[in-house]
Amino acid sequence: MDSTQQPSLVDTIISPEWLIPVSINGQKLDKTLVNHSVVIDKGTILDIAPNHEIQQNYQAKEHINLIGQALIPGLVNCHTHAAMSLFKGLADDLPLMLWLQNHIWPAEQQWVNDQFCAAGLQLAMAEMLKSGTTCFNDMYFQPHITAKTAKKYGMRATIGMLMFDFPSVWGSGPEEYLHKGLQLRDDYKHNDLINFAFAPHAPYTVSDAPLKKIATISNELAIPVHMHIHETAQEVKDALKATGKRPLQRLQELDLLTPNLIAVHMTQLQRTEIELLARNGVSIAHCPQSNMKLASGISPIQELLTAGVNIAIGTDGNASNNDLDMFGEMESAAMLGKVFCGSAQACSAYEMLFAATMGGAKALAQDELIGSIEIGKAADLTAINLNTISSQPVYDPISQIVYTAGREQVSYVWINGQLKVREYQLVDFDENELLASAKHWQQKISHSIN
Amino acid sequence: MDSTQQPSLVDTIISPEWLIPVSINGQKLDKTLVNHSVVIDKGTILDIAPNHEIQQNYQAKEHINLIGQALIPGLVNCHTHAAMSLFKGLADDLPLMLWLQNHIWPAEQQWVNDQFCAAGLQLAMAEMLKSGTTCFNDMYFQPHITAKTAKKYGMRATIGMLMFDFPSVWGSGPEEYLHKGLQLRDDYKHNDLINFAFAPHAPYTVSDAPLKKIATISNELAIPVHMHIHETAQEVKDALKATGKRPLQRLQELDLLTPNLIAVHMTQLQRTEIELLARNGVSIAHCPQSNMKLASGISPIQELLTAGVNIAIGTDGNASNNDLDMFGEMESAAMLGKVFCGSAQACSAYEMLFAATMGGAKALAQDELIGSIEIGKAADLTAINLNTISSQPVYDPISQIVYTAGREQVSYVWINGQLKVREYQLVDFDENELLASAKHWQQKISHSIN
Repeated sequence: MDSTQQPSLVDTIISPEWLIPVSINGQKLDKTLVNHSVVIDKGTILDIAPNHEIQQNYQAKEHINLIGQALIPGLVNCHTHAAMSLFKGLADDLPLMLWLQNHIWPAEQQWVNDQFCAAGLQLAMAEMLKSGTTCFNDMYFQPHITAKTAKKYGMRATIGMLMFDFPSVWGSGPEEYLHKGLQLRDDYKHNDLINFAFAPHAPYTVSDAPLKKIATISNELAIPVHMHIHETAQEVKDALKATGKRPLQRLQELDLLTPNLIAVHMTQLQRTEIELLARNGVSIAHCPQSNMKLASGISPIQELLTAGVNIAIGTDGNASNNDLDMFGEMESAAMLGKVFCGSAQACSAYEMLFAATMGGAKALAQDELIGSIEIGKAADLTAINLNTISSQPVYDPISQIVYTAGREQVSYVWINGQLKVREYQLVDFDENELLASAKHWQQKISHSIN
Repeated sequence: MDSTQQPSLVDTIISPEWLIPVSINGQKLDKTLVNHSVVIDKGTILDIAPNHEIQQNYQAKEHINLIGQALIPGLVNCHTHAAMSLFKGLADDLPLMLWLQNHIWPAEQQWVNDQFCAAGLQLAMAEMLKSGTTCFNDMYFQPHITAKTAKKYGMRATIGMLMFDFPSVWGSGPEEYLHKGLQLRDDYKHNDLINFAFAPHAPYTVSDAPLKKIATISNELAIPVHMHIHETAQEVKDALKATGKRPLQRLQELDLLTPNLIAVHMTQLQRTEIELLARNGVSIAHCPQSNMKLASGISPIQELLTAGVNIAIGTDGNASNNDLDMFGEMESAAMLGKVFCGSAQACSAYEMLFAATMGGAKALAQDELIGSIEIGKAADLTAINLNTISSQPVYDPISQIVYTAGREQVSYVWINGQLKVREYQLVDFDENELLASAKHWQQKISHSIN
């Protein structure tokens, strides 16, 4: 640049101690940049370069120096039921079916409505933002409230167009679920933060005809399909008994095994099924803490990675995990992956960070826009303070992020260049109001079950 | 009490929203008290009663109201190599033997001395106190520095009288290790915070004769024995090949399977061995995150609990975990326990909280003194703020502590009635100094390995 040229005026410059792009041009990049800054303008990453070049070329409205801190792409939580946050800890340490049938389903029957979902979503979004998550992939009742709340708080979200065979508070049956879902998608077509996925709940709750219809539309319009699949051995066993087929085979026959599919859980996988998933470009949303806590099983993540399957990470809902903390989830994914396949090399810190960012972006077909720190991408960014007693000394920042850092070390969060967390504080929420609301609901719900 | 009687003057009254005693008279107590206060005087729990009674009967120099907070017994970390904190994240995601042989052992050879240990221990103690741990059971080189540093900062510790067959920076061989260890124990016999355990490293590093000697002295003087046992399948396989016996059988023949034994890891256990451990009153120090991260295996905790074996919880050293956070460890213990035995009921939140407090106290033969909130016990206490976005709403405080709370929610910590953490801040440490020291060591160590 000509030294007489005026520096460009931009919105923000961020100068972290460690800049971790995670990916470049769609490829893995296990590398940390030092003495580099990121330039944000109009919501987009305009430049990434050594500090002295940035200082010469740009003048920013705000320059944020992050000494002792790492900057990573915003975390992508690829499987949530966010509005369930008001049920967190309602009934723990119970067998899965007892938990569902005697606690969660009756509580949902009694409490889930627009108002409950709005309150739960605010609490969940506050929790996600504070812990560095910038985008979530949701499946729950009242998706219109999810979309509306995400839009209100400027969170990036993929909203599940929920479907069951049976009626619920959100619809009367497959026809209406499909209609309402697509209508909602249409309502938000001009909002670049809000995206949509089909969300047929599970193979055992949605029958062939509506699944076939979803496959057709999904393949035509490239809409993701977000579905619980092979969560437990019992599910596979029941399907074999009822249909003579494992669920994955049935979904293949219904043309659902495509790059649009986000298969959640997948704890039960045979060798040939892993190859099938790889061949068809299916993404897995791995939820290690939910799978452990509900004793569902363990997904063979390293085998899937080796086969070339795209892995994303999700927390699952607050009632089963019981938090929406992607730091805990990355760490659990790494640790569980290692002990499951008997190799300390498996599921490395970098691979899990990739899964929690770019892996999620790919699953949601948003990888041109988010998932890595690259010029031209949206400025969805998370800063993590590693200058803490528990993260010092820092030999390898990626290792410290996955194995030592906690959500409390998230200092700044941007979505589309907008600050959502500043100096550990939520920008758009009043925490005291959220806490009061959570207590209010807890009292109502406790009263009804005791 | 006569209403005209003057209230007694005491040191401290603590009034938490939830008081969780964990145990009563050595028995399990899965119960939370509300509207109760704890009275501390001269380091001891003097009274526990409803708030109005406490207010009538006592006047305190300091009255701490903990609205929205839970009070639990101080956490007991039952297996650490605390001074290793300066190696945290030095070499991750490597196969166990490569990690040890090419990274950890050479680094130890080069760096471990009194000065390194003192710096590492300060960082580790600061991390433990901030995350609610009041007592730790350590095994590492330079135990005289561990004892000295714990005494200096008023932390309760059981110091391992380390032993190998081979020489190290701490001694020339079994004779000297034994002599130096017992001498050190003698030096601290009048300090009620510092206790000692024999710490023969592992069955494969200490031969029969010194182990026999340890068994004799341990049984005579009721000194705990802290030892890595059955950490990996390879260890058991190698022992079978070398001796024709599984390590546990050999230890039984050496009279080491007694209530004094703290068997660390124990990922390889046969049904008959579980019964043997139960019959002989052996305690297990369960380190789930280390076992996962190093792909060592999974200890059958629920089976051990069902058989009546006492379970304690440890983090292992910072180089293998990579933190000293008992909140993460309790959660991992619960989750891993459930998925391992295929039951969401297994390893409940309460059982894991018991293991992390009273279980550890029992293992260390300190259960008359610590491990529960009971009148007459030492005031080792940890307060946890549950009035946070991620822990609200609170249906069951024990569940929220294990499944949602993080170390950052620890607001107050007392050891022997002395405040160690006040309003989230360490009382006796300068954090900036600790961070500077960690960076100083990181630079020296990095320089030597690159």
